[in-house]
Amino acid sequence: MQRGKFLTIEGTEGVGKSTNLAFVRDWLASKGLEVIVTREPGGTPLAEEIRSLLLSKRAEAVDETAELLLVFAARAQHLAQVIKPALARGAWVLSDRFTDATYAYQGGGRGLSKSIIEQLEQLVQGDLRPDLTLILDIDVQLGLDRARQRGELDRFESETVSFFEQVRAAYRQRALAAPKRYALVDAGQPLSKVQADIDSLLTRLLA
Amino acid sequence: MQRGKFLTIEGTEGVGKSTNLAFVRDWLASKGLEVIVTREPGGTPLAEEIRSLLLSKRAEAVDETAELLLVFAARAQHLAQVIKPALARGAWVLSDRFTDATYAYQGGGRGLSKSIIEQLEQLVQGDLRPDLTLILDIDVQLGLDRARQRGELDRFESETVSFFEQVRAAYRQRALAAPKRYALVDAGQPLSKVQADIDSLLTRLLA
Repeated sequence: MQRGKFLTIEGTEGVGKSTNLAFVRDWLASKGLEVIVTREPGGTPLAEEIRSLLLSKRAEAVDETAELLLVFAARAQHLAQVIKPALARGAWVLSDRFTDATYAYQGGGRGLSKSIIEQLEQLVQGDLRPDLTLILDIDVQLGLDRARQRGELDRFESETVSFFEQVRAAYRQRALAAPKRYALVDAGQPLSKVQADIDSLLTRLLA
Repeated sequence: MQRGKFLTIEGTEGVGKSTNLAFVRDWLASKGLEVIVTREPGGTPLAEEIRSLLLSKRAEAVDETAELLLVFAARAQHLAQVIKPALARGAWVLSDRFTDATYAYQGGGRGLSKSIIEQLEQLVQGDLRPDLTLILDIDVQLGLDRARQRGELDRFESETVSFFEQVRAAYRQRALAAPKRYALVDAGQPLSKVQADIDSLLTRLLA
């Protein structure tokens, strides 16, 4: 049995992750592949409860290391219960965010040390990494305007523009440092053009 | 301003932690010390929510690394919000469980690697360690019989006797390896004798 492939979609707020995730899912399904669609933080009942803790606004200041450990706790559960079993039986896994989001939000945005994130990544994932990560990239202000039209903001969406500039910079840096593992997609283009780009990426991946 | 002292109380189920914690609190207060009583996992609103995730029984199998990271996430929050500020202003902090419980339950009980726990301890605590840890020690079956009379069992209390034997062994090992930092108290004695032992330990600590 061939191991399935692990794809992740990343990007700052309002970048069009949901729309393009559905496009990728339908594209893969149209090739007859079994696709598991999931998200982080979350993906299992316990991990979704951890997600609620992470996203809810609270009076108490959240310690940055506590936040980082919650993210990886949810990820460990998600890997054990969903991602690894699916890949092992040959299904493809498509996740809305994964560890690149931790490098971008907790590393870039909050300024936590990259080496600590790497330590936790190693502890939780061993050698498992996505086969391909689509980083949807857009002007931060434009994305935030879009996201904020959607309604009430969670604890992350309420961050400042300069926080998201750092998140975006961290995503771009990761994409540029490992061009085989990442595809940086210009999400400021018209949707048809974005999806044409994704179409050629997936065609190459499947070849 | 002199930094306060940090005391922790540990032990397996039914060992009499609550009763003896109250005894220690009253003893210290009678010397005119400000004492903050707290517990792990927990001690802040967010950390108490993490505690609920950890203790509640669930259909989903909980990944051991996820459990370990949740424990340390709660601890990071507890340290930042409660323990460090209290010690810094000169208060004494008395916690019902701390990192020794992680070595005992997740290390001894679940068999997770000690070096991983040490890495996380270093990440979350830096050099902060309790000044004194009372380990209440009792025959496992006797303790469980006592604990189970209290009613419904949480996810940990529902473990097997052999799990708790390993937890107890890990506690004893830690106490014996660092006798200055730990006091191993025989909690199978009559309560008056247990508390006479604690009285002399505290008298020495304060001297």
